[in-house]
Amino acid sequence: MRQISVVLVASLFAAQASATDWQALPETAPAPADNPTTEAKVELGKMLYMDPRFSSTGTVSCNSCHNVMEGGDDSRSVSMGVHGKTGGRNAPTVWNSAFHSVQFWDGRAPLLEDQAKGPVANPVEMGMKDVDTAMERVRRIPGYKAYFDKAFGENSMTVDNAAKAVAAFERTLITPNSSYDKYVKGDKKAMSEQQVRGMNKFASSGCTSCHSGAAFNGPQMKLGEGFFTKFPTFTDNSYVAQYKLADDKGRQEVTGNKADANIFRTPTLRNITDTAPYFHNGSVNDLAEAVRVMAKTQLNKDLPDADVNDIVAFLGALTGEYPEITMPRLPATSGTSIVAD
Amino acid sequence: MRQISVVLVASLFAAQASATDWQALPETAPAPADNPTTEAKVELGKMLYMDPRFSSTGTVSCNSCHNVMEGGDDSRSVSMGVHGKTGGRNAPTVWNSAFHSVQFWDGRAPLLEDQAKGPVANPVEMGMKDVDTAMERVRRIPGYKAYFDKAFGENSMTVDNAAKAVAAFERTLITPNSSYDKYVKGDKKAMSEQQVRGMNKFASSGCTSCHSGAAFNGPQMKLGEGFFTKFPTFTDNSYVAQYKLADDKGRQEVTGNKADANIFRTPTLRNITDTAPYFHNGSVNDLAEAVRVMAKTQLNKDLPDADVNDIVAFLGALTGEYPEITMPRLPATSGTSIVAD
Repeated sequence: MRQISVVLVASLFAAQASATDWQALPETAPAPADNPTTEAKVELGKMLYMDPRFSSTGTVSCNSCHNVMEGGDDSRSVSMGVHGKTGGRNAPTVWNSAFHSVQFWDGRAPLLEDQAKGPVANPVEMGMKDVDTAMERVRRIPGYKAYFDKAFGENSMTVDNAAKAVAAFERTLITPNSSYDKYVKGDKKAMSEQQVRGMNKFASSGCTSCHSGAAFNGPQMKLGEGFFTKFPTFTDNSYVAQYKLADDKGRQEVTGNKADANIFRTPTLRNITDTAPYFHNGSVNDLAEAVRVMAKTQLNKDLPDADVNDIVAFLGALTGEYPEITMPRLPATSGTSIVAD
Repeated sequence: MRQISVVLVASLFAAQASATDWQALPETAPAPADNPTTEAKVELGKMLYMDPRFSSTGTVSCNSCHNVMEGGDDSRSVSMGVHGKTGGRNAPTVWNSAFHSVQFWDGRAPLLEDQAKGPVANPVEMGMKDVDTAMERVRRIPGYKAYFDKAFGENSMTVDNAAKAVAAFERTLITPNSSYDKYVKGDKKAMSEQQVRGMNKFASSGCTSCHSGAAFNGPQMKLGEGFFTKFPTFTDNSYVAQYKLADDKGRQEVTGNKADANIFRTPTLRNITDTAPYFHNGSVNDLAEAVRVMAKTQLNKDLPDADVNDIVAFLGALTGEYPEITMPRLPATSGTSIVAD
């Protein structure tokens, strides 16, 4: 916990000092040394990502809650897994998740490789007994072997390699060339006057204290080290009760440390127009309201409507270009059913 | 009912007479006169087909149960809709469904246009109150208007046009060029010796009595007129109880007529290796067992294992080429959530 607090506070100062250090989104994402991104991994990872047969009911894939045809989430306040069960948190977008230095709202997974294994065995998500049982299903689909061979070599059908492939695919899910990116790179006509006004208000109001950097998720950290924020920071307002903002203890549930109560990884603001509803509990349906709530709970400010509207307009400039993705053809089971639940 | 019986019996004779009339799959599907297939409709239809936001929970799209990345079904015995509710029947494959002259297992919808509206308001499928409520959600997504305009002209955001677009997309879901198709067109090396043997046994055993025609779903009928079969026909065997084959009254539930008990539309056998488990109730997991059950219940034959294996090999030759499909980009709601359940 001590380490996290230090990172948190130090980063706040660093971010404030460089509030106008506007960065465009890189076109490639960092990958860990032991899992360089290759075409073969991305191809396999896309298949695994889209395949619902590794959930107990055969109905839930990674894409069910992190839909790459939409904003990389599921349009729900909290996600719905097997048998209609619901979890406690809003699905974070998979788009640009490669630019997070830790994964999950509470940062409990250092890398995408670790994150990919989590939902498989979660009883309210994909509902498998464990990741090995899920992997056994992958092995029962004959066509997958050739793809593992190509990506990782012979005898490579392991949980770790499956997770590596999914992570490699996710590292291709990047949305550069937003109006904001073009503006920052010099095309001053790329954003409207209102958006530029919103950009300045976004900085001057203090939003960049946390939402800095190319992905607006805080200053760049080493992979595995998180940039966390306490939310809500200011609790003396009606929003906290109205939207149940303090109910989820966040990182405290990971560390068991009370000082981590309500600490969350700072989410990206990229493509935020496509990811309603908002916040860790998906309690706020509308982006303008989300801006008001953030200003009050994080900066103790009551933003005038004009400022809210300008900032919302600016946030719209953060929606980038989604790459075209071809649907994978999922290998068949050749005349045998593998879904049991 | 009288009309259906006549069609049924007459067709059985017709099919038997032309048992060796092996036909390749056409590369285009018939469309009704009032809904010619156009690129703009197909594009819109693909979006609507893939969009889960028109289910009450935001989790179920057409593609959830008729997954075009797989065999056009969901790998489940019976499908699972909103809130984990299950229906009573196995999801028929959407691939080549354009070659069915009626839709649903019980043939209750004459055209794909009619079928497309059914699951939306079914409480155990997409769970919307009615199709108009679903259409209201479509209208709340600003980006859809341009696609309706392009496909159908101004002010065209109606339930009927949405269904037409989905049907137009489905008419592109055709899988020609299977080994069988190539063989029938003259490439005698396209099928293995075992597959050719299986093809002959498939005909000589009587399977072609019902599974005739290019899609192996019976003789060609006018769109809206069905080719139905009683299943099980022979009930004096252990399979009927073991797999609960007679429990579902089939077309009787549509017509209310007892003479329609256990009458079903003859399903296609195209891509059958990719659509386990089998039958209207998905009770049989394995293709070889499905062949045995069919032989016994429909032809009153106990097929030797060698024949079963040959026929299974032949059925593998019916798996065609799936077209490459680009994922649609689903229009955003621009910062507002529309999913309520």
